[in-house]
Amino acid sequence: MNASVIDTTAKGAVETEGRDGRGEDDGTIGRSVKRQDLLEKATGHAKFAGDIVLPGMLHGKIKRSDVAHARIRRIDTSKALALPGVKAVLTHENVPRVLHYGSPHPRSASVTRDQYIFDNKVRYWGEGIAAVAAISEEIAEEALDLIEVEYEELPAVFTLDEATAADAPQVHDRGPGGNQVIDPIRVSRGDVDSGFAEADLILEGEFEFGRPTACYMEPNICVSQWDGNDKLTMWSSTQTAFMVRGILAEVLGVPLNRVRVLVDHMGGGFGAKQDLFQHEFLCALLARETRRPVRMEFSRKETFLGGRSRHPGTMYLKQGFRRDGTITARQARITLNTGAYGSHGPGVTTVGTTALTSLYRCNNVDLEGRCIYTNTPIAGAFRGYGVVQVYYGLDIQLDEAAEALGMDPVELKLRNAVREGDLAPSGHPIIGHGLEDCLRRGAEEVNWGPVRQATRNQDGVYRRGWGVGCEMHGSSAYPGIKEQGNATVKMNEDGTVTLLTGAAGLGTGAHTALAQIVAEELGVAFEDVSVVHGDTDIVPWDIGAFASHTTFMVGRAAQQAAADIRQQLLAQAALRLERDAADLAVRRGRIVAVDGSGSSLSVREAVSPTPGIPAAHLIANGTYTPTKSYSFAAHFVEVEVDTETGQIRVLQVVPVHEFGKVIHPVAAAGQIEGGIQQGIGHTLSEDYVVDTSNGRSLNAGFVDYKMPLAMDMPPIRTIMLETAPDPGGPFGAKGIGEDPIIAIGPAIANAVYDAIGVRFHCYPITPERVINALAGTD
Amino acid sequence: MNASVIDTTAKGAVETEGRDGRGEDDGTIGRSVKRQDLLEKATGHAKFAGDIVLPGMLHGKIKRSDVAHARIRRIDTSKALALPGVKAVLTHENVPRVLHYGSPHPRSASVTRDQYIFDNKVRYWGEGIAAVAAISEEIAEEALDLIEVEYEELPAVFTLDEATAADAPQVHDRGPGGNQVIDPIRVSRGDVDSGFAEADLILEGEFEFGRPTACYMEPNICVSQWDGNDKLTMWSSTQTAFMVRGILAEVLGVPLNRVRVLVDHMGGGFGAKQDLFQHEFLCALLARETRRPVRMEFSRKETFLGGRSRHPGTMYLKQGFRRDGTITARQARITLNTGAYGSHGPGVTTVGTTALTSLYRCNNVDLEGRCIYTNTPIAGAFRGYGVVQVYYGLDIQLDEAAEALGMDPVELKLRNAVREGDLAPSGHPIIGHGLEDCLRRGAEEVNWGPVRQATRNQDGVYRRGWGVGCEMHGSSAYPGIKEQGNATVKMNEDGTVTLLTGAAGLGTGAHTALAQIVAEELGVAFEDVSVVHGDTDIVPWDIGAFASHTTFMVGRAAQQAAADIRQQLLAQAALRLERDAADLAVRRGRIVAVDGSGSSLSVREAVSPTPGIPAAHLIANGTYTPTKSYSFAAHFVEVEVDTETGQIRVLQVVPVHEFGKVIHPVAAAGQIEGGIQQGIGHTLSEDYVVDTSNGRSLNAGFVDYKMPLAMDMPPIRTIMLETAPDPGGPFGAKGIGEDPIIAIGPAIANAVYDAIGVRFHCYPITPERVINALAGTD
Repeated sequence: MNASVIDTTAKGAVETEGRDGRGEDDGTIGRSVKRQDLLEKATGHAKFAGDIVLPGMLHGKIKRSDVAHARIRRIDTSKALALPGVKAVLTHENVPRVLHYGSPHPRSASVTRDQYIFDNKVRYWGEGIAAVAAISEEIAEEALDLIEVEYEELPAVFTLDEATAADAPQVHDRGPGGNQVIDPIRVSRGDVDSGFAEADLILEGEFEFGRPTACYMEPNICVSQWDGNDKLTMWSSTQTAFMVRGILAEVLGVPLNRVRVLVDHMGGGFGAKQDLFQHEFLCALLARETRRPVRMEFSRKETFLGGRSRHPGTMYLKQGFRRDGTITARQARITLNTGAYGSHGPGVTTVGTTALTSLYRCNNVDLEGRCIYTNTPIAGAFRGYGVVQVYYGLDIQLDEAAEALGMDPVELKLRNAVREGDLAPSGHPIIGHGLEDCLRRGAEEVNWGPVRQATRNQDGVYRRGWGVGCEMHGSSAYPGIKEQGNATVKMNEDGTVTLLTGAAGLGTGAHTALAQIVAEELGVAFEDVSVVHGDTDIVPWDIGAFASHTTFMVGRAAQQAAADIRQQLLAQAALRLERDAADLAVRRGRIVAVDGSGSSLSVREAVSPTPGIPAAHLIANGTYTPTKSYSFAAHFVEVEVDTETGQIRVLQVVPVHEFGKVIHPVAAAGQIEGGIQQGIGHTLSEDYVVDTSNGRSLNAGFVDYKMPLAMDMPPIRTIMLETAPDPGGPFGAKGIGEDPIIAIGPAIANAVYDAIGVRFHCYPITPERVINALAGTD
Repeated sequence: MNASVIDTTAKGAVETEGRDGRGEDDGTIGRSVKRQDLLEKATGHAKFAGDIVLPGMLHGKIKRSDVAHARIRRIDTSKALALPGVKAVLTHENVPRVLHYGSPHPRSASVTRDQYIFDNKVRYWGEGIAAVAAISEEIAEEALDLIEVEYEELPAVFTLDEATAADAPQVHDRGPGGNQVIDPIRVSRGDVDSGFAEADLILEGEFEFGRPTACYMEPNICVSQWDGNDKLTMWSSTQTAFMVRGILAEVLGVPLNRVRVLVDHMGGGFGAKQDLFQHEFLCALLARETRRPVRMEFSRKETFLGGRSRHPGTMYLKQGFRRDGTITARQARITLNTGAYGSHGPGVTTVGTTALTSLYRCNNVDLEGRCIYTNTPIAGAFRGYGVVQVYYGLDIQLDEAAEALGMDPVELKLRNAVREGDLAPSGHPIIGHGLEDCLRRGAEEVNWGPVRQATRNQDGVYRRGWGVGCEMHGSSAYPGIKEQGNATVKMNEDGTVTLLTGAAGLGTGAHTALAQIVAEELGVAFEDVSVVHGDTDIVPWDIGAFASHTTFMVGRAAQQAAADIRQQLLAQAALRLERDAADLAVRRGRIVAVDGSGSSLSVREAVSPTPGIPAAHLIANGTYTPTKSYSFAAHFVEVEVDTETGQIRVLQVVPVHEFGKVIHPVAAAGQIEGGIQQGIGHTLSEDYVVDTSNGRSLNAGFVDYKMPLAMDMPPIRTIMLETAPDPGGPFGAKGIGEDPIIAIGPAIANAVYDAIGVRFHCYPITPERVINALAGTD
């Protein structure tokens, strides 16, 4: 079995199994080449949106409401405007009243048009209600305090129960009523009643999900400038530059070629930076009003107030099992809390609900997903996109079933694992047996049976336990939008190559992977390929860096463009070698005759000028509309619970992932480790808390909102399998971005149960909850 | 006859003849749309290289020699380095010793590799010998004075006579000897001896050409920065960004994808900014050495000392004529003075020499062109590229012949004018009868016979005269290099379009013309097309903006890319209209059925999302390798000579040009008017003078070097014909950049003769020369 094994306890040592005799000359795929952004980032030269400084630049700040639901009766900006240094103030009275999309997929069923740039109503505590541009941040802040607002407060709903109660106050006038963003998503297949009738065991459970937020290192930030041709240039930290361009153009009433969105490096996004945010519209409008560049940067607090969290919510889950473990029926009702605006709520609800059709096979399913408005901060897209929540409950319930049936949970999961030809949530047949491979390989790696046995019958303060969680996730499986990867590849006259891509560089190393794919396809060195990205004027259209699709989908488009260049290259070589191009091939950076006859040329020689033949400059575009592709994982986790403090410590994680083909093992492992860190946080500590008496945010900042730090991280021994390559992906590779955050949660919950015998149906499993549970008060 | 007539006495009033019923909906070609750079330039927002300000930027300055020919015995930079604020000093002792190309066509026979960044020898007064980077321009200047240089002076040659004398001191060790840059260019056809034997009239003449320089408004300037990935970004005012990239990469020893050259707007180039200059290497090296951005800007004086002038030189010309005016033989020996380095000397010599095979037909030619080193500033490429010089003499001699034969010069020129099927200097057959059309139309326009008659037998101080001069010039007819135009066209999902081109924006309006071509081909509005240019990382390769080929060659590539987009657009429309794409066409911005049936779509609708069909994002590349293409002109000029002061005033010019198709009449007329202004300057006043006793520049600056100013300009009634469209050009269009500077010179000289009866075989025809000639002392 081909696998890369990366042990974070001895980082850099990548073991590659099953790649016999792969040497230096064997190309770049599967090799942890030096990342393209390494030097820049290590030396501080890398440019982020916040590094943009323009002559005459103003600073914009947003005034936020201190009530959760109200009509704005009066808003008086005169004192703010009179403050020296203030250049413009915007409120709902002087911005375009356009129902824009809280998110960048305007015509998709995944998102909702329910947000104005500013409204005459406030729908959550912390919502922006006015903006100021001034010559300094300090003056802008001061001006915010001078804006006088008179509210007419309205009754508010903060919890799902309140929002869905009969006669509940409505957050919006729109939608199907009952504070629903959309009509419920219903998925059914087979007949659950007869399924449950066949069952030997029926389990039911209620699950409750907290509100973790993305906590990207770089806060939301943008800089806007209108030029002498009345064209807007915006530098923004966004995953979806082309979507930002499209929505800005529509809202500002200018054509697309009058809006240029630039993204160089980003300090993370995790899906949450695919919305278009209030400050991006405001920044553009303030710059237009003042005819000066304007910079707006969120404070850390504002990344909570104005950002997007994962959807909190609840799930009722009922499954039937035969004695042998086979699942006979699955019924679920998922209710997600989107906060004050819809954003990606519909998409997250759809993806989450349909995810329950799969992972563990079941012919009889009856699923319902609902998405509900409340007067709380906005939930949106976030790595794992609805799947984190539902697989948390699903996988825990499998663990419960295993115990009830007296089976090993790995055995039960193997029995039900989706396999070749089963339908994925997207409706496409699954390729290979990735999930089974991950489970088997992980169990073998951790010595599953014996290590679990060793944790039986513990007592004492510190108790250890092992757990396993599974997941699958689609790349480019986003519902209802156009999925298309695009790339342009140019070859210079010295054989070096430039790839132009619209895919944003979140920090994942995706550009490095794309360069590797191009280098491999062309037979040139990785160092010979540079990547140009992040400028909507110049790169081919891109859907955005989300849904785990950059390496998979854009990678394939880049491979296609490179394959076109390869043909052009062979034609150039044929001219120089005076042979037929059809007789030539690129082999390890040289153009040789397929039959080995005659002389060969380096790639450089094939495009350099030779007597009578000028230098060649090659260019090609690649476009790829993907099939949906699924990756799989099983995470094996050991925890230790301090039964006195309730503190849970993750002792080690062995994540086993099946990605079809690993392009860059260390970067891929980095994705996995990062996902595990985020997943540990979500499962054990992270929860953005809203006071349910008044809607006030209680912990909008890193003092009170607790992420795991580097010192909290356990050793991780990452195993990456290549057992189910996808013929639709570049060299068989599949998506990798979202998978790592999904399985870690239920694995921890199952391990906690293994350690202390308490089932948690919620996250985060805080010390308080552990203590209370052990004390029998929860 | 299709023609645009533009009268600068009533600018803006473009008469268009022979375009019956052309209305608003008839597309953008031939319409003087609002230039893309208009608003930016009018408001001062347009960015030039000099507007680049980077944090920590240093300023570089060049120390120049004050001897004309010497070996540098010692150069001591210690005092300069000790000056606070000085960060680096470069001399020949610490820069790469690479024989780079004085010009950007490294492997072409047109240029010479004879220049080091710094040498241990000085070859002309004003040559750069050291460079300093400091925290301010003032400190850098001060440091230059602290550099101590000890010269061993060498005997020098300043004139062609000195340089070609037996045993002359040699400027270089290289070349065929006798201070020749290259072996003489020889072109012969037929048999001149028998040609002269057939002649009824033989004329011989010696001509002498001055040293005008390009005098672009924006001095040479560049800013260099090395980033954290050891990649060089250079903003430079250059016509040839890709050539700069290539040569820099080679000299700096980095691959092409580690050098990015950026050019936004430029304040002129006129061909002289296609060399790579000393300061560009030095700027890159100083930035690498200091790890800080470095800016280097030429003073106006340095644009003379370090720039490139037109080649001064001499020509011996002998022609035989039959009584009926037919030319029977032509013999010429051209000697051009390239100054201290070869630069474009070989190319200019080749183009100039071969130009004498044409314009006026002749079966028997014997031509020799020589290019000679002297210890004077460097001559190089300059609008008209060798043709200005030789056609000056050729056309004057035709005027002489007309008089000797008792013919009207227009009649004589018509008799000999090249026509359809004749071989152009490039060896390609000429299309159409453009020269005859220009001559006939101009003679008719000015009422040639009668106006000339009116100037007979004048006396008094002020005497008027009429003259006519002719020219032809190739676009993309540059010898020995790869000619290829490239373009990428993208269509956004709202139907707006972006053109990516490498062609530099000298200020000519070429980008506007390219946008018009794309708009026309796609049937969209001109305003819907924006142009991205001037960044070697992102745009397709470009040869550079010179040789009159942007509109012709890149325009055709853009048209091809747009035609590809049009096909993609029809496919998208076909999807939406549920028809066969083959039945559809783009007509005036709408996609309609060819047979008129069914419904139609706007371009926007054809790419916007509709139910079930997502938005389309189109992209296509176009590549065009041109045939050589020739444009023609005849300039009719009236002058007035003040016989007391020798001052010549040009009273009016009627330039008639044949361009195949006029894309933008006002911009095209701007090219013609600018060429005439430059041509008047070269013919009457501009001459960069070198003291032939010591090589010192005597008038390196606008106080002593006299260009005509706006108030010196005569009324110009520009007539542009479209009688010989080139099937190789976009919509038949041909090159336009260089032609306007060529015919004006001999037209003025011929008019001066008509006015005062004195033949000048030289330029500039200064008042001193006129007075001396009238006094019989010359």
